[in-house]
Amino acid sequence: MPEISIVLVEPIYEGNVGFAARAMKNFGFSRLILVSPCPLGDHARACASHAADVLEHAEEMPIEDVFATHDLAVATTGELSKSVCRSIRMPYSTPKELREQIQDAGGRVAILFGRENWGLNNAEVERCDMVCTIPGASEYPILNLSHAVAVICYELADLPPPQYRIATREEMECLYRHLDHMLDRVDHPAHKRKNTLIMMRRILGRTRLTTREVSTIHGLLRRAEWHMEADSSEDGE
Amino acid sequence: MPEISIVLVEPIYEGNVGFAARAMKNFGFSRLILVSPCPLGDHARACASHAADVLEHAEEMPIEDVFATHDLAVATTGELSKSVCRSIRMPYSTPKELREQIQDAGGRVAILFGRENWGLNNAEVERCDMVCTIPGASEYPILNLSHAVAVICYELADLPPPQYRIATREEMECLYRHLDHMLDRVDHPAHKRKNTLIMMRRILGRTRLTTREVSTIHGLLRRAEWHMEADSSEDGE
Repeated sequence: MPEISIVLVEPIYEGNVGFAARAMKNFGFSRLILVSPCPLGDHARACASHAADVLEHAEEMPIEDVFATHDLAVATTGELSKSVCRSIRMPYSTPKELREQIQDAGGRVAILFGRENWGLNNAEVERCDMVCTIPGASEYPILNLSHAVAVICYELADLPPPQYRIATREEMECLYRHLDHMLDRVDHPAHKRKNTLIMMRRILGRTRLTTREVSTIHGLLRRAEWHMEADSSEDGE
Repeated sequence: MPEISIVLVEPIYEGNVGFAARAMKNFGFSRLILVSPCPLGDHARACASHAADVLEHAEEMPIEDVFATHDLAVATTGELSKSVCRSIRMPYSTPKELREQIQDAGGRVAILFGRENWGLNNAEVERCDMVCTIPGASEYPILNLSHAVAVICYELADLPPPQYRIATREEMECLYRHLDHMLDRVDHPAHKRKNTLIMMRRILGRTRLTTREVSTIHGLLRRAEWHMEADSSEDGE
């Protein structure tokens, strides 16, 4: 199955971190990453129960390193937040759809869970390739952090072996830079740029491109660039 | 959707009861039943968070009353326990299969969750119509109680309106008594009786009979009884 990391971003309650570790191990996951967590002590270990090893081997790292070391980053968001800023948080997948979408892809996948009180902020969600929302009751859709981890791990358990290797994070970021450059080249308005780039990231994030496909897209973009240069030269610019 | 009650049997930790109430409300469930629970105080309410109403309206009742007031009872068991005593705990459904099996059935459904340390005992599982096991990692398959509730509620959320009314608990128990009587009548060996009756309960529990189907089976059993009596008379007994 793809290498899946569960990433808790600035968790506030150590009990939730412990329970999340336990839920991970219950469904066969072991790679826990913590971004600026609260102090973890006896209570976290008690809640982890027989998953104390997952907790002990948890890696702490800045969120930048999470993006740098994973080929695909999935933001989890609550029902409520999905309507807040559509371009960033839409479209979203349910956990069942997420399973379908990532199951053939070999590579390192990070599933990010936000703070107990605020979730993930916009800057964090923007950087992710996909958004996943656990469908909840409208009256009270906000799950406890560890229960959200449990539902996602339950749904992603026992994935079959991946069918192909997805492009690396570096290759994808290079493609996004190329697209950004292309938008410059075609005088795309600056005030629309950010949303357009996020949309590109959402579209391409869902496609799980291979390295070969990425390089074909680069090739097409370069070809377009040459033609624009050639045409500009002909115009005598 | 069917009326679903979440039943916690002798929960030991009040935090788990509170978290279970929250997970229920997150997925649109509100009917919580507690069988001999631990004392519930501030910690339970804190864990319930905005689901304090589910906790406050929880009903306490003896387990006998749970069976008496629900048409279908589902035992949840951990991965490990399923192998312990096959006749009682097999066959089992996954949560996804449970959803398929109960989704058309109108009636009152109780989902039973056992103690944090022991789960449900054999006597309790025997009385249930179906067994549901959350598939977990072999290394550590035992979920925290509230996480098990969350996974089941996640899977059973938003069931469509039921297509037909299932036979009541009373009608089913009457059928099981009739089957027991029939086994007497055909000299079924006493030492096999208990397991055979449990198997009947497992088979018929999965079928979700309608009232009409129950009465047809009664009719067939009665017809067989008449013939056995007639044949006995002819034999001069």
